[in-house]
Amino acid sequence: MRYCSQCAGLIEQRVPPGDERLRYVCTVCSIVHYENPKIVAGCIPVWNDQVLLCRRAITPRRGLWTLPAGFMENDETAIEAAMRETHEEANARVEILGLHTLINLPAVNQVYLMFRARLLDLDFSPGAESLEVALFREDAIPWETLAFGTVRQTLSLFFEDCREGVERFHMGDILDRSSPPRMFRRPE
Amino acid sequence: MRYCSQCAGLIEQRVPPGDERLRYVCTVCSIVHYENPKIVAGCIPVWNDQVLLCRRAITPRRGLWTLPAGFMENDETAIEAAMRETHEEANARVEILGLHTLINLPAVNQVYLMFRARLLDLDFSPGAESLEVALFREDAIPWETLAFGTVRQTLSLFFEDCREGVERFHMGDILDRSSPPRMFRRPE
Repeated sequence: MRYCSQCAGLIEQRVPPGDERLRYVCTVCSIVHYENPKIVAGCIPVWNDQVLLCRRAITPRRGLWTLPAGFMENDETAIEAAMRETHEEANARVEILGLHTLINLPAVNQVYLMFRARLLDLDFSPGAESLEVALFREDAIPWETLAFGTVRQTLSLFFEDCREGVERFHMGDILDRSSPPRMFRRPE
Repeated sequence: MRYCSQCAGLIEQRVPPGDERLRYVCTVCSIVHYENPKIVAGCIPVWNDQVLLCRRAITPRRGLWTLPAGFMENDETAIEAAMRETHEEANARVEILGLHTLINLPAVNQVYLMFRARLLDLDFSPGAESLEVALFREDAIPWETLAFGTVRQTLSLFFEDCREGVERFHMGDILDRSSPPRMFRRPE
């Protein structure tokens, strides 16, 4: 950020009075431009014992497999965002069943919200951002060519829950690409 | 948004190619400036059968009571944000026990994440943004002078769970100030 979006004045990084963090502050009009984490909303579209994955047609991680997910927009709810992304990436219609995972990615200022979902029919196809979309049983999941750690962790917890016959909500953090997920456990 | 933060060029609202939404686009360098919902993270600090509330010293809703909560910052997790806000607003230390509510406020582009928490000691006091902080039993909660619908809904669900002896996660939307909360129910 170099210029003020309100007055086009030069921006500098400064700790405003009463604040403790470096912010982008306009040197002309003094307005503070805050930056905050973004929500990535998506789902696990399930058909019997299979899950719908999309192979990415766009950067980053082009060619790798992912669950349908993307940035939540203004004026929508997280569930609406997850359904919209599923339709955009896989031309698929789902019914949302509940929140499955909340994963913080502080290194990239994102919070993933992934929902359990029921695929409503088999009329799906690649959207503009996908090369291919397909259903996978657990033993066919392309674990080595998944696009993101959040997708790996979400799928891994999902199949674990399936084996135990439960529907759980999971919360955790992925601090960086080389760290394993750190999942929250309720203190005793 | 009037000027481009990258090049100081004039901004106009336009639907970029391949997009379906009006975005802020620079008329000079063509960069798209996206805007996304912000996360408000907070908690329900519990001490025995009492909950800690803060009376707001700042706008909006100055003088009204709220749970400690505020905008999640870059470089932190949602739990860290909830603990930081609790310390800033009430000089209180809590242990987070789990996620209690996720409430979408699409009209103001916010998503509330409210955690169940255990107050660690009684050494609390008003922070810079609070006039007063105090513990309330359910029958003493100032329902008529709560600052936000999200706080009312979070407290109401929390005490309902307490009466039933359960710890549940609740998800829903508050579409505007005049609408009742619309809570998610898992489809059969």
